[in-house]
Amino acid sequence: MTEFGKLGVAVRNIARADADIAARLAKAGVATVHEAQGRTGLMKPYLRPVWPGAAVAGSAVTVLAQPGDNWMLHVAAEMLTPGDVCVVAVTTDNDDGMFGDLLATSYRARGCRGLVIDAGARDARTLAEMQFPVWSRAIHAKGTVKATVGSVNVPVVCAGMLVHPGDVVVADDDGVVVVPRERAAAVAAAAEAREKNEASKRARLAAGELGIDLYGMREPLAKAGLKYVD
Amino acid sequence: MTEFGKLGVAVRNIARADADIAARLAKAGVATVHEAQGRTGLMKPYLRPVWPGAAVAGSAVTVLAQPGDNWMLHVAAEMLTPGDVCVVAVTTDNDDGMFGDLLATSYRARGCRGLVIDAGARDARTLAEMQFPVWSRAIHAKGTVKATVGSVNVPVVCAGMLVHPGDVVVADDDGVVVVPRERAAAVAAAAEAREKNEASKRARLAAGELGIDLYGMREPLAKAGLKYVD
Amino acid sequence: MTEFGKLGVAVRNIARADADIAARLAKAGVATVHEAQGRTGLMKPYLRPVWPGAAVAGSAVTVLAQPGDNWMLHVAAEMLTPGDVCVVAVTTDNDDGMFGDLLATSYRARGCRGLVIDAGARDARTLAEMQFPVWSRAIHAKGTVKATVGSVNVPVVCAGMLVHPGDVVVADDDGVVVVPRERAAAVAAAAEAREKNEASKRARLAAGELGIDLYGMREPLAKAGLKYVD
Amino acid sequence: MTEFGKLGVAVRNIARADADIAARLAKAGVATVHEAQGRTGLMKPYLRPVWPGAAVAGSAVTVLAQPGDNWMLHVAAEMLTPGDVCVVAVTTDNDDGMFGDLLATSYRARGCRGLVIDAGARDARTLAEMQFPVWSRAIHAKGTVKATVGSVNVPVVCAGMLVHPGDVVVADDDGVVVVPRERAAAVAAAAEAREKNEASKRARLAAGELGIDLYGMREPLAKAGLKYVD
Amino acid sequence: MTEFGKLGVAVRNIARADADIAARLAKAGVATVHEAQGRTGLMKPYLRPVWPGAAVAGSAVTVLAQPGDNWMLHVAAEMLTPGDVCVVAVTTDNDDGMFGDLLATSYRARGCRGLVIDAGARDARTLAEMQFPVWSRAIHAKGTVKATVGSVNVPVVCAGMLVHPGDVVVADDDGVVVVPRERAAAVAAAAEAREKNEASKRARLAAGELGIDLYGMREPLAKAGLKYVD
Amino acid sequence: MTEFGKLGVAVRNIARADADIAARLAKAGVATVHEAQGRTGLMKPYLRPVWPGAAVAGSAVTVLAQPGDNWMLHVAAEMLTPGDVCVVAVTTDNDDGMFGDLLATSYRARGCRGLVIDAGARDARTLAEMQFPVWSRAIHAKGTVKATVGSVNVPVVCAGMLVHPGDVVVADDDGVVVVPRERAAAVAAAAEAREKNEASKRARLAAGELGIDLYGMREPLAKAGLKYVD
Repeated sequence: MTEFGKLGVAVRNIARADADIAARLAKAGVATVHEAQGRTGLMKPYLRPVWPGAAVAGSAVTVLAQPGDNWMLHVAAEMLTPGDVCVVAVTTDNDDGMFGDLLATSYRARGCRGLVIDAGARDARTLAEMQFPVWSRAIHAKGTVKATVGSVNVPVVCAGMLVHPGDVVVADDDGVVVVPRERAAAVAAAAEAREKNEASKRARLAAGELGIDLYGMREPLAKAGLKYVD
Repeated sequence: MTEFGKLGVAVRNIARADADIAARLAKAGVATVHEAQGRTGLMKPYLRPVWPGAAVAGSAVTVLAQPGDNWMLHVAAEMLTPGDVCVVAVTTDNDDGMFGDLLATSYRARGCRGLVIDAGARDARTLAEMQFPVWSRAIHAKGTVKATVGSVNVPVVCAGMLVHPGDVVVADDDGVVVVPRERAAAVAAAAEAREKNEASKRARLAAGELGIDLYGMREPLAKAGLKYVD
Repeated sequence: MTEFGKLGVAVRNIARADADIAARLAKAGVATVHEAQGRTGLMKPYLRPVWPGAAVAGSAVTVLAQPGDNWMLHVAAEMLTPGDVCVVAVTTDNDDGMFGDLLATSYRARGCRGLVIDAGARDARTLAEMQFPVWSRAIHAKGTVKATVGSVNVPVVCAGMLVHPGDVVVADDDGVVVVPRERAAAVAAAAEAREKNEASKRARLAAGELGIDLYGMREPLAKAGLKYVD
Repeated sequence: MTEFGKLGVAVRNIARADADIAARLAKAGVATVHEAQGRTGLMKPYLRPVWPGAAVAGSAVTVLAQPGDNWMLHVAAEMLTPGDVCVVAVTTDNDDGMFGDLLATSYRARGCRGLVIDAGARDARTLAEMQFPVWSRAIHAKGTVKATVGSVNVPVVCAGMLVHPGDVVVADDDGVVVVPRERAAAVAAAAEAREKNEASKRARLAAGELGIDLYGMREPLAKAGLKYVD
Repeated sequence: MTEFGKLGVAVRNIARADADIAARLAKAGVATVHEAQGRTGLMKPYLRPVWPGAAVAGSAVTVLAQPGDNWMLHVAAEMLTPGDVCVVAVTTDNDDGMFGDLLATSYRARGCRGLVIDAGARDARTLAEMQFPVWSRAIHAKGTVKATVGSVNVPVVCAGMLVHPGDVVVADDDGVVVVPRERAAAVAAAAEAREKNEASKRARLAAGELGIDLYGMREPLAKAGLKYVD
Repeated sequence: MTEFGKLGVAVRNIARADADIAARLAKAGVATVHEAQGRTGLMKPYLRPVWPGAAVAGSAVTVLAQPGDNWMLHVAAEMLTPGDVCVVAVTTDNDDGMFGDLLATSYRARGCRGLVIDAGARDARTLAEMQFPVWSRAIHAKGTVKATVGSVNVPVVCAGMLVHPGDVVVADDDGVVVVPRERAAAVAAAAEAREKNEASKRARLAAGELGIDLYGMREPLAKAGLKYVD
């Protein structure tokens, strides 16, 4: 595995997750996947969808960019294969608009399913019209240069979370969660089991049963010291 | 009245505001109610609706939660009665996703009209589909534990504003305002009077009359030192 | 030209940009105009549209307001002429709701095309229904007083960018960009040329051509030290 | 008790806490007092001392100011008596420099022990030279007007915490904590007991004993599921 | 005058303010100068001194840098003359450590009195030991590249304030204020008059006279509606 | 190696870096070490020293804590050996005061050199008196519970940077940088070489030589398009 955060390297071949497993994780959704893998893997909530309603999962092609410089996003295009999700980290906090409709057109032509970027995006309206999903920390028209190399497909930290190339990245209106490639099948199964379990709980709660009864919380609450007062 | 901010107490019976008055305050809307009660009662603007367009008002069932712990939101479900709005404060800044579709299902079954939470919410898309109104400081899939007691129905500070159990909480796309229960009737009347007054002003402004004439501002502006220059 | 940031002055007559040029800049959009004028003129990305989808451009009528005080927004109404965009700076950071549906009604009656405000706006839902475009740093119901004079039509800094009265302000879902009046025609032409140029690039990228080939980046990347690894 | 957050009122006579109890609370310090009263009463940590090393406690004279307007801080001077701490809340977020060396001179002449302000302070160096203690959210030279009334000695929320006039406010390098007047004696006693208890713990920890042994945590950790791995 | 915010230009000769006037402004200090020029010219309070106690004023040599790129700070060194203060703006928000002890050594050798930078600085401890004054938005070790041109000595916006080359920049523990070169003499005189005036007020306040009497506020307060309650 | 971010595990034995290498890295300082390892490894600049002037380096004992819960900091004490630096990550953003003088006493007794915590610290004054070095995101008296397990000595992301147990953590007034254990010797050597190189540059710059000459920047600047204007 290439060194974490190394600059100046573009890795061509990476192991990817199974497309079917990614589809199952996308269906389960971010909140359920996060729970199913033991409450790990979440990026910070400042990443928000540029347009609401998208839900994707795919193998991560990672980019490490320099502030104000989107050169590596062009280099990454060549590495993208159908089903990938591009994940962009930056060497420092930066809100510049590194990604817009031209790159989205190119990424879509490569089969890329979406972008997660710890920086800004622009052409917000066109991205929505194209239905190309983007999660970003800002919408900002600020243009970027192409002057300094970063890397493609090295391990990075994006919005507070470690991402290895080929990890499954799941994103929807609740945010973004990363599932290590080798755990993806197990997490997908756990997520589906959790979904089934929740369906029956949802029905009971909808019928008016209280969670503190359903989950047997009355005794633990008393032990923890909660006092009821009239 | 229970002590402000006290931990470890769940108060079962609280006095509530009149449902009809709450309805009138919801109709008037947050901006008008805030003006009508003398420009007080507003929560901080970082609370935003999870989905746009909702407008609710109801008696507050208050929750004081610990960071990363949504146990008290389950305890609060039992205290909710039709027409209530649940208001969640936390003992410290926290963005975790304390509320999602299961709790929303339970709260709806109890007749709760909406949630105002100084923390995060998740299952954003499902909340929108359910049309369950939530105002939160973040959308975050981060799961929470059930380990440490807080309180239900004690006075709290939520998003910078004091809330007593039973106060009327009014929330729409402009934010959230709190009306003390004992002032609710008077504020509703003042809000309606204000609305009527604004209708005629709106017509005159729409017809092209200037606000500085309508409000008689020319003389006070001159006194305050404003100089016109060509 | 009136002094930058001077308080207590309302300037009645300002030179405005050509309406046709403003229309062309609005059509080009913020991201393209920013590029076309050499990557200058952008306001900070914390300014966001109150409702999505609006796209306007017009000559700036500038306001310098005091915190918590919207008096000068009423004074500015008289200076507005059809096609103007009102730009509000504040003497210090402030999120109060200085602008709502009554002022929007008045501004629309004057022919004003939209508002850019480095403070808060309220009546968010009504502004959306009226389709009156507003870009603000917050949505906040907090009411303001009318007690202290600021200025109208002096040069100001709004959201980090210098604006002279009469400059063309272009705003859409990507943010807000300022074009100095005397450069507006040249920038409009450059923006249109850029748009044309991008159309052909978009087609080639959509057909699968890589940006690093299209833009001839392989050699510069190698020179800059990027290493490809398998 | 005057109404929470009411505008336009200056209350002359308030009940104050015992000076001796305040002195004991100041000696115990913010962190200990916060623990001793059940982990309540803390203001948000964005309040920081203008100069390090001060530690004070006193009865609160509360001020509710308007943004950009320090008029009420002048009104409050008349209400200050020896041993008081002035607490300033603002009706909205504001960083303006509402307090500087002239007001500090006046407040000191009145016997005031320090200022806690949810806004800005200025003349930072002079305040340090005078050794007049101030906790603020910003250091900012921005001047303020005297145009709009707020209140003195009404209950307010300052930096997220409810303060009633006459409550004991304790402040040091760790921040600011509020002790309700009627609980001050009990909290002072609890804080002193806690201090004694900590002294012996400190000695044992300094001697190398582990906290997990001293506090008997090994069994609860095992129950909670912690696994040790070599 | 060179165009505002123009990229790619280094202007060699600029008109500077009188050194004696700068010295008088430094002595008066930021808070007083800000008041003396009509409450304008202040930069945002997020700019803080890297080490406390410095107080400088000098003619601005302005730099417009790209994010993550300190090339223009090297270009600026050649333009610095004794008594100058270097002011660095960036084309977008950036916290990188653009300035450290080597540049400080060079700037000092040129006679530069200090640096105001809307980005990060590093080598904080050495800067303090050298007593080279720096005001920055961050202390950050993050290194920068030298790849993309910005400008030297064009008008810029730094931390929210317009700065022309040659304006007097005054900085101390209260922040940074800009005085337009052509107004510097008048502002220095006004500041000194203000200082004198404050001395007598300070004495009266120290003797226990109340500000509301000294400033004659009782009647205006009553007119504005303040009610005293016992 | 234990799984990244796994909860519920305390790893007893970790490989540590050579103490002598850590000492050399501490001497070189954060800014130089960051440069010497290719501009990687920096934590975000929001981590600040609780008291200025400390400079440490040591092998990381990592902690993954839950929000508002410092239980794992007690577990970590047992794993600390002389020369270690404790690094605390939290599963979500949290400013609570997880570390104070009692834990500092215990950690010091174990030989721990300092703490880097992506949360709050308290007892700020005592920490300074003890000269126990702490870098934190906040100073906050807010107490924490001991209710939910996290982990000790698993790989974590702290303040945006990946840390493996045993990595060398270097911290001073410029912030915190992480050096992977296996690269520590090489980075120390590179840092010392860099220091030597800088000494001669410093002398030449102090003598008035310009950086653009010293670094040979005039030609690259011209190529990059910089125009000099008089």
